[in-house]
Amino acid sequence: MSPVTVVELAARRRTARTFAKSPVDLDDVFYCIKVAVQAPSGANSQPWRFLMIDDPETRKRLRAACEEQEKRFHGSVEASLEEWFRSRNITWQKPHLTEAPILLAVFSNRKMPYAKESVWLSVGYIILALEERSLSTVTYTPPYPEDLRNLFNAPEECMLETILPIGYSADPRSKEERRPFQSFIYRNVMSQ
Amino acid sequence: MSPVTVVELAARRRTARTFAKSPVDLDDVFYCIKVAVQAPSGANSQPWRFLMIDDPETRKRLRAACEEQEKRFHGSVEASLEEWFRSRNITWQKPHLTEAPILLAVFSNRKMPYAKESVWLSVGYIILALEERSLSTVTYTPPYPEDLRNLFNAPEECMLETILPIGYSADPRSKEERRPFQSFIYRNVMSQ
Repeated sequence: MSPVTVVELAARRRTARTFAKSPVDLDDVFYCIKVAVQAPSGANSQPWRFLMIDDPETRKRLRAACEEQEKRFHGSVEASLEEWFRSRNITWQKPHLTEAPILLAVFSNRKMPYAKESVWLSVGYIILALEERSLSTVTYTPPYPEDLRNLFNAPEECMLETILPIGYSADPRSKEERRPFQSFIYRNVMSQ
Repeated sequence: MSPVTVVELAARRRTARTFAKSPVDLDDVFYCIKVAVQAPSGANSQPWRFLMIDDPETRKRLRAACEEQEKRFHGSVEASLEEWFRSRNITWQKPHLTEAPILLAVFSNRKMPYAKESVWLSVGYIILALEERSLSTVTYTPPYPEDLRNLFNAPEECMLETILPIGYSADPRSKEERRPFQSFIYRNVMSQ
């Protein structure tokens, strides 16, 4: 597999919410983590922690807990966001939590400076690395991550930032459209 | 220039705090923004805004404002962080704000869902795209970004997340060491 440019990876990459049954090579997951730990971080504190979840029982409990949260969440969001969900057929159900071959939960050590910023920057690295390996994901964020702490036995300082289900996409949907990049750019001052 | 793998980009990339005088091709900056806008975001809200700053007067004022903030900040941080700064010769002075050929300020629209997370993920994309173009940066975060709002004429909903000075590195320092990637990985449960 010959490398492609960053813009090609970024442009072809799209979110997957359904996954093929084909297994994922653990080396590909390790590859993404090798990439992630090269990211810069506040005072080089390397505040990321990665929890690979493949145990079926743990995943069943995680999915049940997340879906309980999602039911509460979907009852509470603004109408515009609910409309967005409805138009994409996104419900409280999160089958990818048990159906993707592997889950990668990403935590930040909140005692470290700029931990959240650094960890999400590294998630950007991971997403491009997955794409390079032809793997897909969705950056799933449980609505109330704090309530999942016990399930993972996560230490007090570790905040769950996202759970990335990893696998080969079986999601037929096309990539969400982006507005033209020029529309996001200002020069020297932000016009209003 | 033939493409290299994501892990090669990530591994060779290092922070620069001093820059060569060589100008930066604006097309390279646009390239990074083209990459950034392909990132996933909460409900595809694309909450990123990019402010390119090349006007010398604006940059002088920005540097002065940031250095004022840094003096306050360095007086307030914990001893361990101050020691880290001292060992790297990082002071309240931020010459890169006037010396790098261009600054890219990155904002998040905080009215959007998961705006901070999405924007920092896109900063990960940007950093790899810069490296691909042989450009360097430091993810500089002013201590009190809210106080810079007027300088940029930033709308109320736009939060300054980082200012990326962009240029060719003249920083002789080697990359900060990373702990082995295995040390960040857990499986199914976090051991303590």
